[in-house]
Amino acid sequence: MLNFPKKVLIEEESLRDGLQIEKTELTVDEKIRFIKGMEAAGIRRIQVGSFVHPKRVPQMANTDEVFKQLDRNPDVLYTGLILNMRGLERAVECKVPHLSISVSASETHSMKNAQKTLAQATTDVREMILAAQSAGIAVRGGIQSAFGCAYEGEISIDVVCNIARLYDSLGVDEINLADSTGMANPISIQNLIARVREVVSPKILLSLHLHDTRGLGIANMVAGLNSGITLFDSALGGLGGCPFIPKAAGNIATEDAVYAMEASGIETGIDWRSLCDLALRMEHRLDRHLPGKLMHIQS
Amino acid sequence: MLNFPKKVLIEEESLRDGLQIEKTELTVDEKIRFIKGMEAAGIRRIQVGSFVHPKRVPQMANTDEVFKQLDRNPDVLYTGLILNMRGLERAVECKVPHLSISVSASETHSMKNAQKTLAQATTDVREMILAAQSAGIAVRGGIQSAFGCAYEGEISIDVVCNIARLYDSLGVDEINLADSTGMANPISIQNLIARVREVVSPKILLSLHLHDTRGLGIANMVAGLNSGITLFDSALGGLGGCPFIPKAAGNIATEDAVYAMEASGIETGIDWRSLCDLALRMEHRLDRHLPGKLMHIQS
Repeated sequence: MLNFPKKVLIEEESLRDGLQIEKTELTVDEKIRFIKGMEAAGIRRIQVGSFVHPKRVPQMANTDEVFKQLDRNPDVLYTGLILNMRGLERAVECKVPHLSISVSASETHSMKNAQKTLAQATTDVREMILAAQSAGIAVRGGIQSAFGCAYEGEISIDVVCNIARLYDSLGVDEINLADSTGMANPISIQNLIARVREVVSPKILLSLHLHDTRGLGIANMVAGLNSGITLFDSALGGLGGCPFIPKAAGNIATEDAVYAMEASGIETGIDWRSLCDLALRMEHRLDRHLPGKLMHIQS
Repeated sequence: MLNFPKKVLIEEESLRDGLQIEKTELTVDEKIRFIKGMEAAGIRRIQVGSFVHPKRVPQMANTDEVFKQLDRNPDVLYTGLILNMRGLERAVECKVPHLSISVSASETHSMKNAQKTLAQATTDVREMILAAQSAGIAVRGGIQSAFGCAYEGEISIDVVCNIARLYDSLGVDEINLADSTGMANPISIQNLIARVREVVSPKILLSLHLHDTRGLGIANMVAGLNSGITLFDSALGGLGGCPFIPKAAGNIATEDAVYAMEASGIETGIDWRSLCDLALRMEHRLDRHLPGKLMHIQS
């Protein structure tokens, strides 16, 4: 029998993961308008952008400005992503209250995405997390390619568990298991969650980041729900992908994920119909067909 | 904990449900070539077409010829769909060994799809099933719009159970619960299966027919697997839809469904990579983008 949690939180990642492979660059005003639309729809956690090198990811060049100009809603958690200490400095300057700091469980993906071996990445992440915490910033420790790597194939559960143990020892609030490549399936979701839970403190929140590359995104979300996960990342219309993962497809679509949960009796506090309108605005703005389903039928 | 069956059978419906809303009409030779491709990929049950009025569904006008010219593989079950006694006569003449005969659980959908009230449809279905069985044809009793109706919204579980009881009393081999509108969710799948199992003989095979209208197709399949379902309908590339259901989207994509099952450790006997090639050939032939995921990444 399926057994779902009563209430789930969504981290909306359209403006970070969602935009980082798009050719179109959204202005500060446009990004803020999307953020306000998400808030109005009931979204309570928004990843606003990443503090990365503007030459590597030009769509993120205005992240600092978005944070600075944003009229912050006290009910919403605004978060960002950093890859290095320079990013942390910028985040501190922007008074970001929460950060995603992550490593890839795949050596090859780590080299391509962050130009670091897993050992280097782990050392750097420890330094960044401690510094962020000293600055009063709450941290999500992310594990990219946790369910498989586009270059290496299978990823050892032991490698993932070792990273989880490190995050646990550093006292992060949350560990995010990311299926960056869309290689997870319902059984591997269930297994990895069970294994990670065995090695980390029960007070750490476990969350899932899912891509729909092989059509399993929402099914994997259902498996995660059935394993008691209460926090999922998603992006409007199924936006997203990683520039350093070949054939990467987008995240689970926020509006489809919310609909799936609400229809299954799970409370999200989010109006998926309003999200459909936002997804259509994004589709129009990016001028390409987005894979989301509900946005195209809206009923 | 998720609990899936070890082995699952797929009924490939590309050539019936898959084509019935397409503008393109495939020739007898083209259809047979797709059938042979499906067989080579390991598909063991194929819905070849429907015996309906050629003016209403011109894509099905050559169903009789396909059955007559097809070199039948003894390991494969070829099935068809009928809506009335004239269809049954044609199926008998074509020596079809297995038929789908169905009613809609929605009055409105029944009127639009078959120009019959539910009471009339039920009476006619009884007559057709008895006549098919007399002719030595095995029957699947289908229940369309079992999880919701595009016109009426919610469908009463009691109505679905009454149709299931009728099928049971007629001695059908299988009952197919069809989410024609894509309105099911993992919990409603689980609930309806449990309720129908309570009212029919345990020897009746229960199968699921799922559409991906709201992005829940594969997730609903996972819920069905977790409820012990071992037979699912699907179509290449996510083809399909009903001409009398507004905004209907396609079936779950055969190659995505097979991949999801194989990756989760379920044996299908089917090579999803070969199906991706077939799905691409279909996409090329129909000259429109199909929603299937794996066919577009093929790895």
